Amino acid sequence: MFKQLSKHTRQNLKYATVLLFGLVVWFFPVPEGLTSQAWHLFAVFITAIFAVIIESMAIFTASIIALAVVVLTGTLTTQQAYSGFSQGFILLIVVAFLIARGVIKSGLGKRIAFLIIKKFGTSSLKLGYSVVAADMFISPAFPSNTARSGVLFPIVNALAADSGSKVTDGTRKKLGAFLMMTSMAGITLSSTLWLTAMAANPAGAKMAKDVGVDITFGSWALAASVPVLVLFILVPWVIFKVYPPKIKETPEAPRIAQEALEKMGPVHRNEWIMGATFIGMIILWVMSGSWGLDKTAVAFLGLGILMLTNIFTMEDLRGEGDALGTLIWFAILYTLSRYLNEFGFMGWLGDHIAQGVEGYPWPIVYIALVVGYVFIHYFFVSQTAQMLALFSVFLGVAVQSGVPAALMAYMLLFATNFNAVITPQGSSANVIYTGSGYIEPKEVYKVGGVVTLLNTAVFLTVGTAWMMLIL
Amino acid sequence: MFKQLSKHTRQNLKYATVLLFGLVVWFFPVPEGLTSQAWHLFAVFITAIFAVIIESMAIFTASIIALAVVVLTGTLTTQQAYSGFSQGFILLIVVAFLIARGVIKSGLGKRIAFLIIKKFGTSSLKLGYSVVAADMFISPAFPSNTARSGVLFPIVNALAADSGSKVTDGTRKKLGAFLMMTSMAGITLSSTLWLTAMAANPAGAKMAKDVGVDITFGSWALAASVPVLVLFILVPWVIFKVYPPKIKETPEAPRIAQEALEKMGPVHRNEWIMGATFIGMIILWVMSGSWGLDKTAVAFLGLGILMLTNIFTMEDLRGEGDALGTLIWFAILYTLSRYLNEFGFMGWLGDHIAQGVEGYPWPIVYIALVVGYVFIHYFFVSQTAQMLALFSVFLGVAVQSGVPAALMAYMLLFATNFNAVITPQGSSANVIYTGSGYIEPKEVYKVGGVVTLLNTAVFLTVGTAWMMLIL
Repeated sequence: MFKQLSKHTRQNLKYATVLLFGLVVWFFPVPEGLTSQAWHLFAVFITAIFAVIIESMAIFTASIIALAVVVLTGTLTTQQAYSGFSQGFILLIVVAFLIARGVIKSGLGKRIAFLIIKKFGTSSLKLGYSVVAADMFISPAFPSNTARSGVLFPIVNALAADSGSKVTDGTRKKLGAFLMMTSMAGITLSSTLWLTAMAANPAGAKMAKDVGVDITFGSWALAASVPVLVLFILVPWVIFKVYPPKIKETPEAPRIAQEALEKMGPVHRNEWIMGATFIGMIILWVMSGSWGLDKTAVAFLGLGILMLTNIFTMEDLRGEGDALGTLIWFAILYTLSRYLNEFGFMGWLGDHIAQGVEGYPWPIVYIALVVGYVFIHYFFVSQTAQMLALFSVFLGVAVQSGVPAALMAYMLLFATNFNAVITPQGSSANVIYTGSGYIEPKEVYKVGGVVTLLNTAVFLTVGTAWMMLIL
Repeated sequence: MFKQLSKHTRQNLKYATVLLFGLVVWFFPVPEGLTSQAWHLFAVFITAIFAVIIESMAIFTASIIALAVVVLTGTLTTQQAYSGFSQGFILLIVVAFLIARGVIKSGLGKRIAFLIIKKFGTSSLKLGYSVVAADMFISPAFPSNTARSGVLFPIVNALAADSGSKVTDGTRKKLGAFLMMTSMAGITLSSTLWLTAMAANPAGAKMAKDVGVDITFGSWALAASVPVLVLFILVPWVIFKVYPPKIKETPEAPRIAQEALEKMGPVHRNEWIMGATFIGMIILWVMSGSWGLDKTAVAFLGLGILMLTNIFTMEDLRGEGDALGTLIWFAILYTLSRYLNEFGFMGWLGDHIAQGVEGYPWPIVYIALVVGYVFIHYFFVSQTAQMLALFSVFLGVAVQSGVPAALMAYMLLFATNFNAVITPQGSSANVIYTGSGYIEPKEVYKVGGVVTLLNTAVFLTVGTAWMMLIL
């Protein structure tokens, strides 16, 4: 019956539902242990997410209205509310976007894409696997998810575009959407596999050490190896099933790619410059930790070079409104989540979950805490923030209930990574991929939710068995 | 001879010149009284402006490279360097941009534009005068330059576009560039005329009171009236001469506009919604001071309404890369200027100018200080910051040298407004108009420079004579 209503009426019904939802949560009695400020912020945040999930409005629209509401009601000060816009890693996302356009425009993206298609291009699924494998291979050198996405995204983007799957002409589902989603999910796996593949991992290892669990690069990789390998096989295949590309088999593709490469001829001036700039940026990104360089400034410098050499022009910039949209919605959701944490909401929620499981046998406590930790990422925009806020609380409760400390520590650190694809804002990588337009935010809630469930199930079964064997 | 070189060689020569200029300033011995940090920041800032003035690179490119340099050399911390992005008034500029698009797209901009053309459209110069006159009329109610530009800009934009002068098809110079420049220059006059037409004016009046000069809404308007009237007549005409529109006389335009209006028929749904949203925003902007509302949040709310009603869509956002470019370059230049001030560079420069004039007869001191105050705005992005940094210093020196205190106080307050068009970043209004693409940043340095000279000359002659008569 709902389907029979006019589009307009359905839209208005959805707006009314969102408004009602928001008002109910806002005026709900504030739970004990929370300030009304924290509760109101939660009400706005959860309503924005609700609006996106029921497809009532775009994530951009939901975010800007949420921002207006928190400022105009005095829930956040203006200084708090706009603080997300000056976060370096968020600006990095925007610049990575623009640089990705340079990779495509220079022709370098096309060339790399054709080379990959030539080798692995007989089916969409194989392409998916090769993208994830490449990520696994480069990730130990990239302690920043965001920077790594900045490298992978333009290649995936070119792979999609050069296979005739574009956003602007409505063919995103032919191949691009599948590849983007797979690469995005793949990043959760590569980050889980290596201690050095995500910014917060070393900090987590340090926190584990404080409770007596010694984690090294090798022990981390060993513990993660078996479940990640299983997931590496499963995840692209599952996405292929639940979010299938319209093009499946492409036996002709390698030959066509070969011909296209021949037609492209030798590497052109713009490709050389783009390649050199890109490699220079990658070297500086990889070394940023030891040399004390700011990754965002490196990206700005790279973009500057692309502009001085006319590879990316002001004319190109004019068409990059998506990057602006991404900057705005992500900065806002990041800020709301950050202050939910600062106002004590996250701690309160973590405490409640922890209290709820006390007294049960340790395997039940273990499962409940891991599942709780994974799904609480719905409310977190930053993986680092979640780890800093909840790792110790959850680990402490688990140890008290008899869960082996090492097992729990590793699991929580892995979960910090493998839960990242649960929402479009769950990691910077998601933001970059979603911002391309190939994937709609609401699709991340569905497909990313399935992947997260799968990741969690494999880590709770195979992963736990493996860790109990080796730890 | 320079003209004979290939475009490519000329471009590289210009890059080399900018690099050399930057290196010379950077490694120049640091003047006494300044930290090397302040001097290096100045070197980067002045080099970026130099690069824009000699047309070596776009203001966006110059800004992002400047940002990379100040961060990678450790001149600014990352937190300092990115702080501009979370300034509410800068975000307001971006949102005003998007809302302006909504005004056009809804058809409301077209209707208002045709109504204006019908009344005043027989020549481009008359249209210029009518735009400035409208601004003068509404400005006492707008204590924010930015918000006022947010109202004027979409109308000027529609006036240009509906007269067949657009950015994307290369016809910006037919009419749009002239109208934008005139309206931008007009805003300096309307802000000069009324105590309540610019955010910093009341603060300036307060500072004047501290040295015994009592300034009221009425006394301000009286003192400004004659020079502003003279400039109201001169400025559009001078811009018409130095920056002429290609279309000059349009005797047919009112009739065509009348026909177009008849063809448009009654006001449509989208125009009603846009009009109501716009008027609602204006009311909230005007009342923002007394009701304690944040102007940026109001704008976000307005944009949210336009998105919920499909007047501005995600598809429209995709084409708004210019707004992103504007956000980035303006946030960067604002930040550089802000820290030039915080690191003591501005105070040092002001002191030097003040010291240089001591001992001369008061009329010379008066002229030198006013001219110095006007041109120092080259380095300031915020009018308010300049006033807070220099008003008291300059006023103190003047009074010591025998300049009548009231005359000097009024002049400095007026100059804070009438010098605003000297650079593309000299006021938020400039940023909004320049960001449209109708005006190129380098053109502001030229035409804005001429207007600033004219403003200064009229205020030093007619204005000074008038004020000496009445004060």
